[in-house]
Amino acid sequence: MATTYGIGTTVDGSFDETLRRTREALAAEGFGVLCDIDVQKTLKDKLGVDQRPYVILGACNPPLAHKALRAERELGLLLPCNVIVYEVDDGIRVSAIDPLVLLGMIDNPVLVEVAREVRERLERVLASV
Amino acid sequence: MATTYGIGTTVDGSFDETLRRTREALAAEGFGVLCDIDVQKTLKDKLGVDQRPYVILGACNPPLAHKALRAERELGLLLPCNVIVYEVDDGIRVSAIDPLVLLGMIDNPVLVEVAREVRERLERVLASV
Repeated sequence: MATTYGIGTTVDGSFDETLRRTREALAAEGFGVLCDIDVQKTLKDKLGVDQRPYVILGACNPPLAHKALRAERELGLLLPCNVIVYEVDDGIRVSAIDPLVLLGMIDNPVLVEVAREVRERLERVLASV
Repeated sequence: MATTYGIGTTVDGSFDETLRRTREALAAEGFGVLCDIDVQKTLKDKLGVDQRPYVILGACNPPLAHKALRAERELGLLLPCNVIVYEVDDGIRVSAIDPLVLLGMIDNPVLVEVAREVRERLERVLASV
């Protein structure tokens, strides 16, 4: 389940409760949720397939996003930062994109600084769910 | 304006008309827009800053997303595929994330195949706006 592009944790508890805690933890770190995709429902509606609960939250910290977009106008291609919550056999998985890995694709020193701060905040989110 | 992680085009015309054509072109290639972020409005509301029109569309082709998620459960961290529309000095810029570059971070042959198809569709979107 570990990937090179995400940081994550697996927790006990119900899916709904973990999703609620994730949203609260994001808000506490200054992230608004600009994008909220219920993957389970979308795939059921569009394709008729069943799968376990899986939600993608697009998290955005406005001051950091503003700084990043000023440094690189096309960065909207990589925003917002996704946090996913989904059911696995041994609990609920909460993962966040690793902004430092994403920005490894980009040669821009201002962005590395922003990515470090975003990553620290996402690590605190993961530690508190 | 060119980046290593996006493919794009600059067109004449108004912002609203280009955004409308981009949405239509995405629909014609089987992409639903699951995420629709008005960056100009968000930064104005949250930070009080003024900037030119800039919209992020999160585009998702359900069959391809399903195939990709079956191949790699954490891929929700990189979905949906962003298409951005924003005003520049010489027109309206429309850019899409290059899924082949994103997947360069991931070692999974099934995903390369999906990324190629998504990229072909996004290229057709860009050619028709």
